[in-house]
This record gives sequence, structure tokens and C-alpha cells, in this order.
Amino acid sequence: MTHQLRVPGPTPVPRRVQEAMNVPMINHRGPAFRNLIQECKAGLQWAFQTRNEVLIFPSSGTGGLEAAVQNLVNPGERTLFVSVGAFGDRFASAGEAYGADVIKLDYPWGHGAMAQDVAQILDDNPEIQVVFVTHNETSTGVCNDIAAIAAEVKQRGRLIAVDAVSSLSSIDLPVDTLQLDVVVSGSQKGWMLPPGCSFVSVSQPAFERQGVSGAPRFYFDFAKERDYEARGETFTTPAVSIMFGLRESLRMMREEGLQRIFQRHRDIARGIRAAVQALELELFADPRFYSDTVTAVKAPRDDTELNKQLIATLRDELELELAGGQAHLKGHVFRIGHLGDINRQDGREMVERLEQALIRVGYIDGPVGAARAYEEAVGAELAAVTPASQGRAPVP
Amino acid sequence: MTHQLRVPGPTPVPRRVQEAMNVPMINHRGPAFRNLIQECKAGLQWAFQTRNEVLIFPSSGTGGLEAAVQNLVNPGERTLFVSVGAFGDRFASAGEAYGADVIKLDYPWGHGAMAQDVAQILDDNPEIQVVFVTHNETSTGVCNDIAAIAAEVKQRGRLIAVDAVSSLSSIDLPVDTLQLDVVVSGSQKGWMLPPGCSFVSVSQPAFERQGVSGAPRFYFDFAKERDYEARGETFTTPAVSIMFGLRESLRMMREEGLQRIFQRHRDIARGIRAAVQALELELFADPRFYSDTVTAVKAPRDDTELNKQLIATLRDELELELAGGQAHLKGHVFRIGHLGDINRQDGREMVERLEQALIRVGYIDGPVGAARAYEEAVGAELAAVTPASQGRAPVP
Repeated sequence: MTHQLRVPGPTPVPRRVQEAMNVPMINHRGPAFRNLIQECKAGLQWAFQTRNEVLIFPSSGTGGLEAAVQNLVNPGERTLFVSVGAFGDRFASAGEAYGADVIKLDYPWGHGAMAQDVAQILDDNPEIQVVFVTHNETSTGVCNDIAAIAAEVKQRGRLIAVDAVSSLSSIDLPVDTLQLDVVVSGSQKGWMLPPGCSFVSVSQPAFERQGVSGAPRFYFDFAKERDYEARGETFTTPAVSIMFGLRESLRMMREEGLQRIFQRHRDIARGIRAAVQALELELFADPRFYSDTVTAVKAPRDDTELNKQLIATLRDELELELAGGQAHLKGHVFRIGHLGDINRQDGREMVERLEQALIRVGYIDGPVGAARAYEEAVGAELAAVTPASQGRAPVP
Repeated sequence: MTHQLRVPGPTPVPRRVQEAMNVPMINHRGPAFRNLIQECKAGLQWAFQTRNEVLIFPSSGTGGLEAAVQNLVNPGERTLFVSVGAFGDRFASAGEAYGADVIKLDYPWGHGAMAQDVAQILDDNPEIQVVFVTHNETSTGVCNDIAAIAAEVKQRGRLIAVDAVSSLSSIDLPVDTLQLDVVVSGSQKGWMLPPGCSFVSVSQPAFERQGVSGAPRFYFDFAKERDYEARGETFTTPAVSIMFGLRESLRMMREEGLQRIFQRHRDIARGIRAAVQALELELFADPRFYSDTVTAVKAPRDDTELNKQLIATLRDELELELAGGQAHLKGHVFRIGHLGDINRQDGREMVERLEQALIRVGYIDGPVGAARAYEEAVGAELAAVTPASQGRAPVP
């Protein structure tokens, strides 16, 4: 049985990417590195659908969030943070750590953010200059309507910074069309890479804001990093091995095409949701905000013990690794990651194993047709498998 | 001809380490990761010669320096930064960025720091609580006498934070014996790993200071990271692939033994310095402070063009990659990295190629016996090659 790592990140690394990383180290201040970073930056701009600068930092996605905060927050200045879950809370905590006077627009977990609420707060608080918001909330499987939110923010001439760690490259987020000022993603999500790099797009207005905002910064300084990258280097030593992988994963993504990647994620997500419901389980998110990269499922019978057993059975007996819940959702949901290196066949195998595990833990008595529900929802294209990868590294 | 990457980092990654990283990704909140981080942390404590907590951050070494600053600096408080080169300046710039009232003790580049100067400043400024200092200055090939400096600092009851990015694991730095409070290292140096992780040891007094110091921090928060690592996780997504490598490189280091690793670095460094002098070149550093991991050599005839030619000839014709100078030393020195995965035979090949390149650029007319000078200085142990690695990954 093939091992399937299906937490919402780290995600599986395709063999082609793994092999691209399996090469000797290079000098990060030499010509080979200049070629590497130039190809990576061009590919990132393509995937971000932007002409903005896309900076590459050696950090996790949270490092990218901190970068957004350090470069845009002015201590003491009223700043809006929109949170629909654990990572929205994390973004706001970073804002507080750097001295923002945080107005937090919170929604019950599972719900999405409403553009009119953001508009109202901006109208009530003309001093707010920047809005921080999550695109895809990994803790709840909610995908916010950034197009609607950004329209309200930009119409009022404010800046918008978006946590797209678990969405960008998997879910359509056209940065320039939506005029997003700062957008953060992380290598271990849809990019099919190990963790270790964050990617941050920065608009011209964001660079201008950075020049006058007062939060302290050093490692994650946008302007300093931009100046180094302009000459094919980075301010500090870059995560070279991850970047070797990034060059290859971007090539794979270009071969497949952005629109086909988005379609693949939409199809598989729809199939997984259908199978989950066929398995008599409840989806956690508000149906208006289903995420196409992460699905949160309510614990069977809201039984935390059974939820734990289910995750352990999948991991230890069925080679499928899913994630539990975070913060107050611990024990109350499990989460399925379906992003990056995943094809339609992987999705079907996953729901079959989930069905098997639910039988083993006694939640259902026998097969209820999860795979059939999956296939029907995915549609005719299932047969035309679109593999993201050309094979995976063998499990040792 | 074997390619030799001999900049002062990134350093070559041994085949064993490369293979250890060439495995599928894992869930960073599961049992496999808990085993991984526990073994890594125990190995780091062994290499740091400490019982202090050693935290693992997904960042470059500079991220580790920023972490030291964010967790120890109190904005507005007088703080001593000792600089002997570009990385000492970087440490102090980070201090300024986070609001420290920086007193900078500067030395001409090439010189080392004097403990009595540190003592004098501490006596003159009783309000100074923390001293930041570089152990091994990568830009100049200077290794400070941390034992002497730490003795003065600790005798006065102050804290000491040490940049040991390019020394720890290669040059003896017994953290507990010297009572060092915060010590920072980076994966791409003596650890034989790709860049992407910083390692930071933190003493109890440093944790206490962190609890009351006021600089903002989030991503690099010592206490938060300690609490996560205590349960076998990390605050943010860790650089899993680098940590797979770390586990293996620590095993290799344990097989060789710390004292033998230090001896190997001392021997090779002595040999390289002897060969450089035999080649009619001048060492840049004050002889009292020669580094055993990085040797800075004055440009032949102080000719920046010739220096550039030499580096290019070595790289393009002789498969030896060295580094140029940084900041105002650009063009005036070249630097040889001899740390991590290097054995005595590698050192001899390096000086032979250097000799060959000096002939090609017309600095010397013919062979002057660089290899012989190297061998004599290294001594009898040359024959008993102690390879750090069991082979390297093939150049693609």
C-alpha cells in the first residue's frame, strides 16, 4: 500500500523534485545561484500571477506572516486583522507582538469572512491603513472570498496583506487582478516542496509603506531583500536545497498549467467532500466557503476518543496520515490535506481507506460506497488521471 | 577532478547526509517527527557541550542572530556589541534595529577582540546587561578568544550571546564550561548540511532575561519554541528535510568524536596557512587570532583585478570554489573555507590547485612546493586520512 501523507502540509515531494534537490551544494554568491534564483523568481511571479517582486525567505510560512507584519505595521496605529481560525489568530498575535493597535474581526470557526463587515470597519475607522486577512484557513478548511474583501479594501485606498500559505499555487489567487499588496505562501504546501522557504509578493505601495512604517525588522526586511535579489543574491544565506527543488516544481507546474492545477484541486476537493458525506460524516466548514486544499470533518459522533482512534487507525494500519484539530477544535475535527502532489486516483484511494478505517473503529458497519460517491462528484475526468508527479521517492 | 566547494558556507554535504534527506516528507506533528527532533536536540546538546536547551529554527544563521537580539535586547537599554568584521557589524545592526542603545566595540578588520577592553567597558557602564560578540568572524578569518571574554563578562554577572555560526561543531566551544548564555550556529557550516536551520542554545538566565526584556518577537520567541519542543514539536513548521540530514550528520560526528573533529580542523587550517605562505601570499588575520575554519588571504599584490582572475580561474578551470572579500575588503582578500566535510587530502588538493591557479594568472612562475609545505605543517597524521564523509553526491 502506498503511503499517503495527507496532512495540510508538509505535503508529498514528487520524485522529480526530490532528485533535483539531491545535488551538491553551491556557492550562494556565485553565478550558479544567480541562475537559480532568477528562474525561481520568474516562476513565482507566474504562479502568483503578478509583476510584483516575489521575495524568497529561508523560513516557514509563519516567518512570511511575521515579515508582512514587521514591514507594514506601525506601532500604536489601528490595524485590522480578520480571523476565521487558528492561523488568522496567529497573524493577529504577530501584529500585537509588533505593537499594532489591533482591531480583530473574528468569525466563529468554520465560517468565512464577509466583505461588508470589513468595509464597515474601514468606514468606521478611517485611520486604518492596512488589512491583514487569511485566504485559506488551514485549521478549519475555510477559504475566504479574497476578491470581494480586496475590492472593499482597495476601493477605500487601503493596503491588504493576505496569508495564502496553504492556497497559493493550488487555488486561483490572481494577485495583480485583485491588487493584493502583500501575499505570503510557504514551500511545504501546494508547491510540493519540503518546508523551509516562504514566498512573499510585495506591491509598490507596500514598499512605500515599508519605508515609513515603524515596526522593527532586520532578517525579514523587504527593501533589503529586494536589493540583494535584484543582483541575484539574498541578504542572508538562502535555503539552497529547497530552491533547487522549487526550480523543478515550478517547471512541473508550468508543464501542467495553472488553470489545470486549479481545476485538479477543485475536482478532488469536491470528490472528497462527497465521499465524506456518503460516509455519514459532517463537513465542518460553511458550504459557502469550502476550501479546495483542506477539508475539515467533524469528529464521528463528536467523540474525541473515536476521532483519535480513527486517525491512529488510518496512520498505523492504512498508510494514510491525516491531521487532527487545532486549539479548541482538538478532538472535534480531523483534517484532510489535498493539495500539491495529488492526483484524482490518490483522492479515491484516500476515501477508500477512510471508509475502511471507519469500519474498523465501528462507526459504520460496512462499505457505503465512498469511492463511488467520490467518482461521481469528480466527474468524467477521473479516468484521465492528471498526475502532478512522475512518481514519488520510495519509503525507506 | 573532484569539485571542491570551499567557500566558508554553504559547505559540501556528504553522501550519507544527502541520502538521509532523500526520503519522503513526514507529518511534523506526529510520532516520527517527535523521534527525529528528540535525537537532533540530544545531538546538538552534545556538540554544543551543554545541558542548556538548544532550539532549532527554520532560518539561516542570521535568523539565529536576530533571535538572540529579539530575546535579549531591551529597547533603549545600553548594550555592548563587539565587532571584528562584517558579521559583528551585522549583529550590531540587528541590535540597533530592535532599539538597543548600542555601544559598539570595533576593531580593525583582521584583529581580534581583547577581553580587557570588554572588561573596561562593562566597568564603565554598569547598566550594560548583555554582551553580544562573534566567536569566528567569517569575513576576516579571525577567531576571538571567547574563553577570555566570557570570563570577564560572567565575573561581572552579565549575559553573553555568541555568534558561533561558522565555528560551532568545528572549533572547540564548550558552552557550559564558559557559561555562554546564548550561542548561535547555522546548518550550512561545520554541520555538513544545506542552509535552512539555525541552532540556538539558551541558558536559564537567558530565558529569565527574555521574560522581562521588551524587544518585540514572535517567530523567534525562545520561550514559545522551548514549550513546543518540550513536547516534540516546533512552534512553526520545521525544516524537516534539513533535520533528516542533521540527524545523520550528528551520527557521523559522534562516530568521529568531537575532539578528533576539532583536531582535524586545526591540522588542516595549519596546513593551509603554511601553503599560503609558501605561495608568497600574505594571511590577512592577526596571527594570534587565526581561525581554524576560514582563512582570509590578502589579494596577490593587492591587485583587485588579479584577485578576481584568481577566483575565476580556480572556479572555472580548477573546480575549486573560494569566496571573495566582503564590504570594504571586496577585491582585497580571498577566503578559503575549510570546515565541515573536509579531510586532510582535500586540503592538499586545494593548495595544489591554488598553486596551479597562481601560475596561470602569472603571480608565480612555477611550482613552489605548496603541497609539501601543507604536508609538513599538517604533520604525520596526513597519511592517516580521517574522512569526514563516506563519499559525496556526484556532480550532475
